[in-house]
Amino acid sequence: MVSGPSSLSLRTHTCGELNVDHVGKWVTLCGWVQYLRQDLFVILRDFSGLTQILVPQEESASKVKADLCDLTVESVIMVTGTVRKRPAGQENKMPTGEIEVLAENVEVFNVSKKLPFEIKEFVKKSESLRMQYRYLDLRSSRMQKNLRLRSQLVMKMREFLCNEHGFVDVETPTLFKRTPGGAKEFVVPSREPGLFYSLPQSPQQFKQLLMVAGVDRYFQIARCYRDEGSKPDRQPEFTQVDIEMSFVDQEGIRTLVESMLQHSWPAEKGSIQVPFQTMTYEEAMRDYGVDKPDTRFNMKLTDISDIFSSTQVEFLRSALDQPEGSIQAILVPCGAVRRKPSHEVHTFHFLWEDPSQLTHLLEALDFGAPPHGGIALGLDRLVSIIVGAASIRDVIAFPKSFRGHDLMSRAPDTVSDKDLTPYHIYVKWPTKQGGEEK
Amino acid sequence: MVSGPSSLSLRTHTCGELNVDHVGKWVTLCGWVQYLRQDLFVILRDFSGLTQILVPQEESASKVKADLCDLTVESVIMVTGTVRKRPAGQENKMPTGEIEVLAENVEVFNVSKKLPFEIKEFVKKSESLRMQYRYLDLRSSRMQKNLRLRSQLVMKMREFLCNEHGFVDVETPTLFKRTPGGAKEFVVPSREPGLFYSLPQSPQQFKQLLMVAGVDRYFQIARCYRDEGSKPDRQPEFTQVDIEMSFVDQEGIRTLVESMLQHSWPAEKGSIQVPFQTMTYEEAMRDYGVDKPDTRFNMKLTDISDIFSSTQVEFLRSALDQPEGSIQAILVPCGAVRRKPSHEVHTFHFLWEDPSQLTHLLEALDFGAPPHGGIALGLDRLVSIIVGAASIRDVIAFPKSFRGHDLMSRAPDTVSDKDLTPYHIYVKWPTKQGGEEK
Repeated sequence: MVSGPSSLSLRTHTCGELNVDHVGKWVTLCGWVQYLRQDLFVILRDFSGLTQILVPQEESASKVKADLCDLTVESVIMVTGTVRKRPAGQENKMPTGEIEVLAENVEVFNVSKKLPFEIKEFVKKSESLRMQYRYLDLRSSRMQKNLRLRSQLVMKMREFLCNEHGFVDVETPTLFKRTPGGAKEFVVPSREPGLFYSLPQSPQQFKQLLMVAGVDRYFQIARCYRDEGSKPDRQPEFTQVDIEMSFVDQEGIRTLVESMLQHSWPAEKGSIQVPFQTMTYEEAMRDYGVDKPDTRFNMKLTDISDIFSSTQVEFLRSALDQPEGSIQAILVPCGAVRRKPSHEVHTFHFLWEDPSQLTHLLEALDFGAPPHGGIALGLDRLVSIIVGAASIRDVIAFPKSFRGHDLMSRAPDTVSDKDLTPYHIYVKWPTKQGGEEK
Repeated sequence: MVSGPSSLSLRTHTCGELNVDHVGKWVTLCGWVQYLRQDLFVILRDFSGLTQILVPQEESASKVKADLCDLTVESVIMVTGTVRKRPAGQENKMPTGEIEVLAENVEVFNVSKKLPFEIKEFVKKSESLRMQYRYLDLRSSRMQKNLRLRSQLVMKMREFLCNEHGFVDVETPTLFKRTPGGAKEFVVPSREPGLFYSLPQSPQQFKQLLMVAGVDRYFQIARCYRDEGSKPDRQPEFTQVDIEMSFVDQEGIRTLVESMLQHSWPAEKGSIQVPFQTMTYEEAMRDYGVDKPDTRFNMKLTDISDIFSSTQVEFLRSALDQPEGSIQAILVPCGAVRRKPSHEVHTFHFLWEDPSQLTHLLEALDFGAPPHGGIALGLDRLVSIIVGAASIRDVIAFPKSFRGHDLMSRAPDTVSDKDLTPYHIYVKWPTKQGGEEK
């Protein structure tokens, strides 16, 4: 069986691949009408690029001409014809700019109605319009590239983990139970009164159990869920590259991640330097005051307590009066001063709010748990950094709005009482007084 | 960076790979104590197999000996030592049966408590005990093989689709809206009173929208959800190999699936014949009376109406008295007769119960939808057929019981009223009279 992007297809070539080497070839292209120029040319588009279709002008080809010239923008057609070199002076710089295809047959699959916006990068669209007609928005070359880069990046990660390092891709459940303290977990009512599944924030428990199970090396491109209400640029469902391995130390995990990113980094985005810069938690908090410092500008905190030793400004005075209190600042070009009383530095405390909910995990650790370590990379964020997207929504095919709505299908939606009955729940409607009633 | 299953690991080799070629090598192995034999041998196990560890008997190695002999079954250790050929007559047929490792150092990572059951294939365990201690059950070589075969099968499908045929792996949302008539969809309450997401039964709408979006070729190993209560051998969440492509005909999709399965079929399971046998829906219903006939024994329905033309047996008479009524039978070796009155044959009617819920999809079809086709393969079922598993639970890492319970973590579980408050729902408890109250 022939391979490549046109295998098993009605087309022989994609719209982006034709060049002077194809001159004289009989080809079939399928795609969308990008625009029509004076009854002379049709610019045909598919995911790979554009090809100029020459409309035949002879009397004998009047049917083909009529079909082409009647088309609306974004209609879907199949064109068969011969690749020709463009007349001298008519070439342009697009990848297929030296050729055109003289149409000899055309089949119209679908005539498009007038679109709510044009499929052109430079046409500004509101975010909500883009989301409402996401299937049109995705036709832009930018979104096509983003989705394809994401797919290829993940494929290379899989090859690295699975084929080169013996990792096992294991799917873990998303209908799980509530994690103690997991206030941000969506609940899913079951058919048993009062019993609910939870959508997990990560496969953390399962990946550790897989190590106890002797799976040795696990990975999963895992769908995770977090109900954070309306935080900007967060999605209620998101994707992690979730990794765990047994019989490894911290250095091993670090090398694994560096090598994986190096292996899967898109060639067109340059190369990345390894090893990555490392810093302890204590160093980060001491030097930058945060646990994810931006180190690009070397803007460390500086102790400027001395300058303010005799200050009477109240908030500075009260910071200095604390035991071990200090005033720290980041020196920035425009002179803004950030107050950072050093006694605010905290260390993390992991709170098992209700260990009885974790019996299965605690018990598992007694039955021969190997030493293990792992990591989870936020895939949406990683891809958006690689492509330079302003928002993670630009690297997700069908994202939710910042309020968690799907503006295209209008989810979430109402559900009838009848459909809720099997789940033994009812809706508590808020009252005007701010309380709730049935 | 070195590749292979022991890269970045504390071990130098896996327990299954050592053979006479390694004799004299200094190796480090990590694994679980499968069993101890008379203070002389420890059999060490990891995912790849078993190695016999020879306990040193010299006085100078008394610490190593004591450490090894104090171990309990399923404890986790790291052993370093030299590979030796076994003395003549002590070889056996296991893959590492010609060698043993003389322990010179041992590190005990974790001493195991007594297990609820032994990790041996021949020890019969109840299904519920296996599920409660799934992380122990997964240590069996059968489950290790099943999970690894599944991972590799999917990897090969991905290579075929993504690398060879230009498919794009696109993740579609699982927090969606209810499909009209989708009575089997779990609901997920949102923070807006009365509004619910639904967990989709398949990405059907999204994959068609991706075709309208010009993605051209889409696939996804997609998590799907179906709330079917307690049907045997069904899971509330399951996985589909979901495929859709544009500008293709039925024959193209068929060839794609055949080639993909041929490409990804595990070598050790023999080869599969393509093209697959095909049959129209009408042929299936006429010849077998079902839409998924078992064709292995060529047991077609035979019209035996003539034999019963003068029957007075009431159910046969009433079948024959129907317009176009007939009696059909499958001739089976033991002579059982199955009545199949032919007027029972139905054709499918697709019911759009409420098209207003599908506005976004219907609208999309007007804005330049390409001809497209696709398929979805049930991955759990496919893998269970390949490995010959009695149940799909044997190819899923953490399956639910037939009542939809996770017997290990005890999901679904109760959720406090406080945790339900943000979702504006409360539980309707059933009353003794069969009704429900708050």
